[in-house]
Amino acid sequence: MKKRLFTPGPISVPEDVLLEMAKPMIHHRTPEFLHIAQQSVEGLKYFFQTKNDVFIIAGSGTAAMEAATVNLLSPGDKALVISGGKFGERFVELIKAYNCVPVVIEPGWGNPVELNMVQDALKQQPEIKAVFATLVETSTATTYDIKGIGEIVSQKQDTVFVVDGISGLGAVECRTDQWNIDVLVSGSQKALSLPPGLSFISISEKAWTKINVSKMPKYYLNLKEYKKAMEKFDFPFTMAVGLVIGLKKSLEKIKQQGLENLWNIHQKRAEAVRKAAVSMGLRIFSKAPSDAVTALVLPEGIDGEKFCSDLRKEFGMSVAGGQGKLKGKIIRISHFGYQDEFDTIAVIAGIEIMLTRYGYKLEPGTGVREAMKVLFSL
Amino acid sequence: MKKRLFTPGPISVPEDVLLEMAKPMIHHRTPEFLHIAQQSVEGLKYFFQTKNDVFIIAGSGTAAMEAATVNLLSPGDKALVISGGKFGERFVELIKAYNCVPVVIEPGWGNPVELNMVQDALKQQPEIKAVFATLVETSTATTYDIKGIGEIVSQKQDTVFVVDGISGLGAVECRTDQWNIDVLVSGSQKALSLPPGLSFISISEKAWTKINVSKMPKYYLNLKEYKKAMEKFDFPFTMAVGLVIGLKKSLEKIKQQGLENLWNIHQKRAEAVRKAAVSMGLRIFSKAPSDAVTALVLPEGIDGEKFCSDLRKEFGMSVAGGQGKLKGKIIRISHFGYQDEFDTIAVIAGIEIMLTRYGYKLEPGTGVREAMKVLFSL
Repeated sequence: MKKRLFTPGPISVPEDVLLEMAKPMIHHRTPEFLHIAQQSVEGLKYFFQTKNDVFIIAGSGTAAMEAATVNLLSPGDKALVISGGKFGERFVELIKAYNCVPVVIEPGWGNPVELNMVQDALKQQPEIKAVFATLVETSTATTYDIKGIGEIVSQKQDTVFVVDGISGLGAVECRTDQWNIDVLVSGSQKALSLPPGLSFISISEKAWTKINVSKMPKYYLNLKEYKKAMEKFDFPFTMAVGLVIGLKKSLEKIKQQGLENLWNIHQKRAEAVRKAAVSMGLRIFSKAPSDAVTALVLPEGIDGEKFCSDLRKEFGMSVAGGQGKLKGKIIRISHFGYQDEFDTIAVIAGIEIMLTRYGYKLEPGTGVREAMKVLFSL
Repeated sequence: MKKRLFTPGPISVPEDVLLEMAKPMIHHRTPEFLHIAQQSVEGLKYFFQTKNDVFIIAGSGTAAMEAATVNLLSPGDKALVISGGKFGERFVELIKAYNCVPVVIEPGWGNPVELNMVQDALKQQPEIKAVFATLVETSTATTYDIKGIGEIVSQKQDTVFVVDGISGLGAVECRTDQWNIDVLVSGSQKALSLPPGLSFISISEKAWTKINVSKMPKYYLNLKEYKKAMEKFDFPFTMAVGLVIGLKKSLEKIKQQGLENLWNIHQKRAEAVRKAAVSMGLRIFSKAPSDAVTALVLPEGIDGEKFCSDLRKEFGMSVAGGQGKLKGKIIRISHFGYQDEFDTIAVIAGIEIMLTRYGYKLEPGTGVREAMKVLFSL
């Protein structure tokens, strides 16, 4: 059975990238590899839209989230978290795990954040050292006003702005420098169309002032070591060579395509899925839906877990179910990775046919027609 | 851009077969490879539905067609050809090239053959040594009554029946022994879902009596040498090792799936494309359409060559144009190779959208809806 991935990471990897990564292994401390690393870091700066330092970590997204936490904070520090889902909660967990004090704004799962709540929190608690937010909350497929929050935080001299851009970067607009993001983290298995295993973190000058005085215990994720090594485009520890080779290739393709075009493609795919879903009578879960991933509320009586499992078993099609309190209630479809318009049509067709098999009444082709209209401007 | 092949060979090859073929090269005269060859030949006998000898030739389909011609005939021999398109004509060309005399029945491109014409020709010219027919004529997407012709030829003691099963075998029903086919040829790049480069030929006892007295000059395609080598599951000349490794894998999968199931899958895909095409106002070219490949007549004023080229350029989608006198008039969509229901939906969506871009009036989703109904029994 043919397999099709529409999960919000891992995603399908393009053939040319797979072949690049399948080439014979090289050593990580060779001029050949350091040159690849240098080009990758330059590509990442474009991908992040930043002039700041960007580091590559051999580890998945959470490693970079932890790097942000342990490098910026010292024990007992207070940090504000805008937590609208599972990955907002992860920042809260990280902050607690390292004996810091989280101040949490919870707009509710699927809801956008009100900027005045951020403003008020920072005014009332000026000792807050960092604000943690999420570009796209994968668990609810919600996007947040990062630009707006960045403006607020940039007014505060002693507070840095940290953004989890793991699911969103490359899929939706995000401009690190223009939007005053001090620390942006991302991962390989989303819009970069790579396997999981690498994460990335950018550090502004303002963030370095925090890192330089941090008293948090750390070793593998000590960014000062990464900076020292990066002077020679090297890494403090063994790097995941094959993945970085894939990263270089993927970033070259993104540079060639243009980041704005990449955002537009995701926007179109997401809009197609949203319009198709509405035409089939499904509700979009998020009140601020992202173009990276879409969460759909299934009709009453349909178990989302079983629905996902049936899509995989019957059609080889992987979409994600709900996480945490949304388990069984929603399905989530990613728009990033190696997919095209006809894949979007396929996933809509798959959902449509499966709904019919579940006894849901639908005129065949209802969703597909709407998706085709959006994707091909018919 | 993602590439999708709907050409009547080469076709997409499944990932597991590609990976099998990508393994390090082995020598062709080793016990390891000879064991693979043995398993492949056994798999081919199932695929051919025969107890006859089946040989593997390193060469594409035409090599096996030539092998049939030069091994069965002697210079000056008369042979009947049922020629309904480009590949029927190829048998005529082969017979002429080797100084034999073709007697040609031409039912007209896209038309089935009338069995009494075959009967009459054999009665009027009893010196005819062989009858050449095509299971599926790729150029017109037409299938012929091979079973019926086989019955007629089997009555004649001195005439053998040769079938070009290159495009059809595995996609449509064909039973070598039950249908009295003395020589069946096929190729790797069709329903076997392999790259091109291998062809196959089965030889009945009746055919061996012809081969044993053939005076035709030959060397690379001398089947007596293949038979001698095959006693040890060896080959007379260097074999295309990687392709045979893929062949073994592909035949294992077909055995597991069951040949009848494979025929049914092709039938469903073909029916979906036919129903979708008719719903879009397109005409099926053939009066006896095959389930291996479908030929569609484009609306007046649309150039088929440009249409195919635009599908490839705009959507990465390869369908075939017309050959010979059908150039520019039809497009041909294959149903074999590594494709599934969602690929069939994709090619219909692609054709539909391209027709719209050519100014042809269509309600979006017209063809896709019909394809979905057939493919998923909605």
